[in-house]
Amino acid sequence: MDEYEFEQFLHKQIPITKEMGINVIEFTPLRVKMSAKLEPNLNHKCTAFGGSINSLMTVCGWAMVYANIKEIDKDAHIVIQKSSINYLAPIDKDFIAECILLDEISRKKFFEMYNRHSKARLKLKVTCIDENLLLAEYEGQYVAFK
Amino acid sequence: MDEYEFEQFLHKQIPITKEMGINVIEFTPLRVKMSAKLEPNLNHKCTAFGGSINSLMTVCGWAMVYANIKEIDKDAHIVIQKSSINYLAPIDKDFIAECILLDEISRKKFFEMYNRHSKARLKLKVTCIDENLLLAEYEGQYVAFK
Repeated sequence: MDEYEFEQFLHKQIPITKEMGINVIEFTPLRVKMSAKLEPNLNHKCTAFGGSINSLMTVCGWAMVYANIKEIDKDAHIVIQKSSINYLAPIDKDFIAECILLDEISRKKFFEMYNRHSKARLKLKVTCIDENLLLAEYEGQYVAFK
Repeated sequence: MDEYEFEQFLHKQIPITKEMGINVIEFTPLRVKMSAKLEPNLNHKCTAFGGSINSLMTVCGWAMVYANIKEIDKDAHIVIQKSSINYLAPIDKDFIAECILLDEISRKKFFEMYNRHSKARLKLKVTCIDENLLLAEYEGQYVAFK
């Protein structure tokens, strides 16, 4: 699935992502990057609503699990268990979330666990950065299961 | 501001809350309760999207700070600093978030701090419960400032 196909899939499967103006910029098992429009996600201070920032980051992490698990099981289910987020600076333009899976060991462990127990957890960090300024940092724990 | 007025205010100030079908059920300085429609917040598993659950709970906590701080300063600003959430069970119907401020001491401290420093933090717990079943639990830290 390429960026465009995953974006279409996302808009169909989680319709609020379309309302939020979410676009998929990069979709690979090592890096997922997606943006949201500011306008549909405005808050009372004309910056991005915290809930929308969280939604973008939640979907970004979910997409990373998806990009990986579908390599070994196209029927795998993925759900989020928990997450935490720090809002570090107000966002006054379209914003981008990025999830990078640099840790090949975690990835292998995740696959091993999934193959052995038909279930595996993955903790992922997602960031919102604008020109070296960290706007929000997020950590989510996702579970893939058969 | 009564429930209806706050709902109108919310839909205008944070338009995605209208898209999510958020309704304000109770809006007092001791209890805030609001619901979201399942349909606009569906995910790929035909249950509520985690990001939308988080958005409802974020707004619910924000509304609680609003209901309190506006008693002493109608021009106060409120932003969210951080939050964490546990998704405990899938949600397959319209869902309700509730924030209760039973702790009168925290409330007094919050007001004292705000009056002394023109800024104060409040940590709030929000729950999503359906017939005694805890569906999601959330904690958010908000800041009110002049």
